[in-house]
Amino acid sequence: MPEKMVIRNEAIRRLRAVFEKYGFDELQTPALEYAEVLTGKYGVEAEKLMYLFRDPGDREVGLRYDLTVPFARAIANNPTLPKPFKRYQIQPAYRAENTQKGRYREFYQCDVDIAGSSSPMADAEIIAVVNDALSALGFTNYKIRVNSRQVLFSIMEKAEIEQPKWLTVIQSIDKLDKKSREEVEQELEQKNINSGQISSVFEAISKAKPDDFLTTTLAYARSLGIQGTLVFDPTLARGLDYYTGPIFESVVEEPKIGSITGGGRYDGLLKNLGGPDLPATGTTIGLDRVCDVIEELNLWPNLPKTSSKVLVTIFNQDLTQQALKIATELREKGIKTEVYPTDSEKMEKQLKYADQKGIPYVIIIGPEESEQGVVRLKNMQTGIQETVKIEELVKKLSV
Amino acid sequence: MPEKMVIRNEAIRRLRAVFEKYGFDELQTPALEYAEVLTGKYGVEAEKLMYLFRDPGDREVGLRYDLTVPFARAIANNPTLPKPFKRYQIQPAYRAENTQKGRYREFYQCDVDIAGSSSPMADAEIIAVVNDALSALGFTNYKIRVNSRQVLFSIMEKAEIEQPKWLTVIQSIDKLDKKSREEVEQELEQKNINSGQISSVFEAISKAKPDDFLTTTLAYARSLGIQGTLVFDPTLARGLDYYTGPIFESVVEEPKIGSITGGGRYDGLLKNLGGPDLPATGTTIGLDRVCDVIEELNLWPNLPKTSSKVLVTIFNQDLTQQALKIATELREKGIKTEVYPTDSEKMEKQLKYADQKGIPYVIIIGPEESEQGVVRLKNMQTGIQETVKIEELVKKLSV
Repeated sequence: MPEKMVIRNEAIRRLRAVFEKYGFDELQTPALEYAEVLTGKYGVEAEKLMYLFRDPGDREVGLRYDLTVPFARAIANNPTLPKPFKRYQIQPAYRAENTQKGRYREFYQCDVDIAGSSSPMADAEIIAVVNDALSALGFTNYKIRVNSRQVLFSIMEKAEIEQPKWLTVIQSIDKLDKKSREEVEQELEQKNINSGQISSVFEAISKAKPDDFLTTTLAYARSLGIQGTLVFDPTLARGLDYYTGPIFESVVEEPKIGSITGGGRYDGLLKNLGGPDLPATGTTIGLDRVCDVIEELNLWPNLPKTSSKVLVTIFNQDLTQQALKIATELREKGIKTEVYPTDSEKMEKQLKYADQKGIPYVIIIGPEESEQGVVRLKNMQTGIQETVKIEELVKKLSV
Repeated sequence: MPEKMVIRNEAIRRLRAVFEKYGFDELQTPALEYAEVLTGKYGVEAEKLMYLFRDPGDREVGLRYDLTVPFARAIANNPTLPKPFKRYQIQPAYRAENTQKGRYREFYQCDVDIAGSSSPMADAEIIAVVNDALSALGFTNYKIRVNSRQVLFSIMEKAEIEQPKWLTVIQSIDKLDKKSREEVEQELEQKNINSGQISSVFEAISKAKPDDFLTTTLAYARSLGIQGTLVFDPTLARGLDYYTGPIFESVVEEPKIGSITGGGRYDGLLKNLGGPDLPATGTTIGLDRVCDVIEELNLWPNLPKTSSKVLVTIFNQDLTQQALKIATELREKGIKTEVYPTDSEKMEKQLKYADQKGIPYVIIIGPEESEQGVVRLKNMQTGIQETVKIEELVKKLSV
């Protein structure tokens, strides 16, 4: 498999395991939707990026733009689903963007959400899942930044910003992770915030504390095993327009690629998207970006290129059936076993195949081995060959 | 999860396990392709069903029509891939069909193929995978019908059918699994096959035997553990136009839903589809149809609706952190553990949630349990509750 594919498959495998460990089950929904399901939900700018077209029956259809609308629809279409409803979903979404590094027209989204709980427990669980996911992916140098909409609003109130300007001021202070304080102050001046207000904003930020809800969320997250990775950051805003409570994102500190997960509580959104009126919280994991980072940092240097444990080679046509029988025995014992799928290839080429695919062991059954009821087992990493009885083979390969 | 989703997820899980046991790795490819990759490959009728449109940048694009063109492309685009190249792929394909039972516009395809081997071993391996897959899915009452293009041609030769009529005659005899001999004879008469030739065709069928290649394929398949399910059927034809050697399909005998897998050797096709000139063999598994059958026959009556093993309930807010810590311990031990994600819900409702989701165990930690360092463990199937020390909990739940 191409390396990118191997990394993505492995990342998805690890993420699935984490999500299921927390009781999230997998939802999959169609990519192709009637246009009316998609339009009018994301705003004008988003709709420019939407793949909308007519199908051969002249119906207006389009491609999935994200996984949140499908989440809302799945709940709406299955009213008997037990609530709270927890699901994860790992599927492509489609946006007609200008492609660039880390931005594709068809890209994987990976969402984990809980609908039907307004308790900080749900937010804490999402934060714990993010933490566990990043650590399962092998990241060590990351932080989960946490804030809440209420904290931001209270900063605005304390700095006596007029309410119509809250959103634009918050958008500026959200940039403090990338820009200097001076640059953000300049930006606020250009937005006609007076200098007294500006220094009040920064004072309020320096004194900001989590509100009750966020404090409880953080305490619960710690009980779920999160240690030093959790950071309260009163300047974090993220697409504030639909978040209603805690917000969180995670950033890998090296390399500087910005956030790789982002989420928060969005109590009114499901209803706005055509779903039921349920509180909800969740996160997106930027799977393509995560995979890019894993590749760039060479985080998984020993990732096998195949899941096969052993290649059974074919010595010659006469010995083929015996090789097949041994492969069948190994498979029945749960060992992932490849058979070289040609009965007339040089042994050298078969060994090279195992090497190129990164298969850890090779079995050779020549006339001598066949007579003695043994096989030759070659460890492809050490090059060491040993003669093994067939009964011992399973034990050797199960290690 | 909705039942259909639960069944599909489980079917995919089981199929993946079978494919990987045989050394096939997963390939995933984009659904969205430039139109020129898709058009001119499948014939005029197919193209009428193709989703082709212009993206916002006015480029002609379309949606994946099957998984064979992406297979050919993946090999062409990754020339360093070790050969033979084995992959499985489980992704949706898109066709603007009139929807009906078992036929959807967006439907899952599940393909398993080997490119780069012209040996009967490769065909035998595909047949073994099909057999293992059907049995892993819980089917018992099925047959794998096997034939080859060479056998069909030799029947045509023996019956002295003029070569230009071979294809149409073969298409008629392919119907013998659904129509009576008389009906097929009538159809052949309408195709201007004379009565002498018609009886020669049926005589040749009754005497037909596998050719050398197919005989070896069948022998290898038996060495791979296939017993009575394999049936040589000289009337089996399947889309003969691109198959070049053995062909095979599997049919579930009850309910009569026709074939649920189909495949064969297609040595010239990859090149025609824009890929490299490699021999290939493979099969499609009709995943949507398979899932319909599993649902209709209620083949998996005890399929859990969730992968969660246990629900940790929340007695009250004061005891929430303790519950979270126990959940974290269980997760660290690899036990799929849900926490009821609200800290202020009646116990009755939490138990009902576990029941509705089919979670097998529930943990309750009240003030008494908390004081004694134990938990109450309820088996949701038997209703039996017991008091368990936290150290014993993992053992109990790992069973």
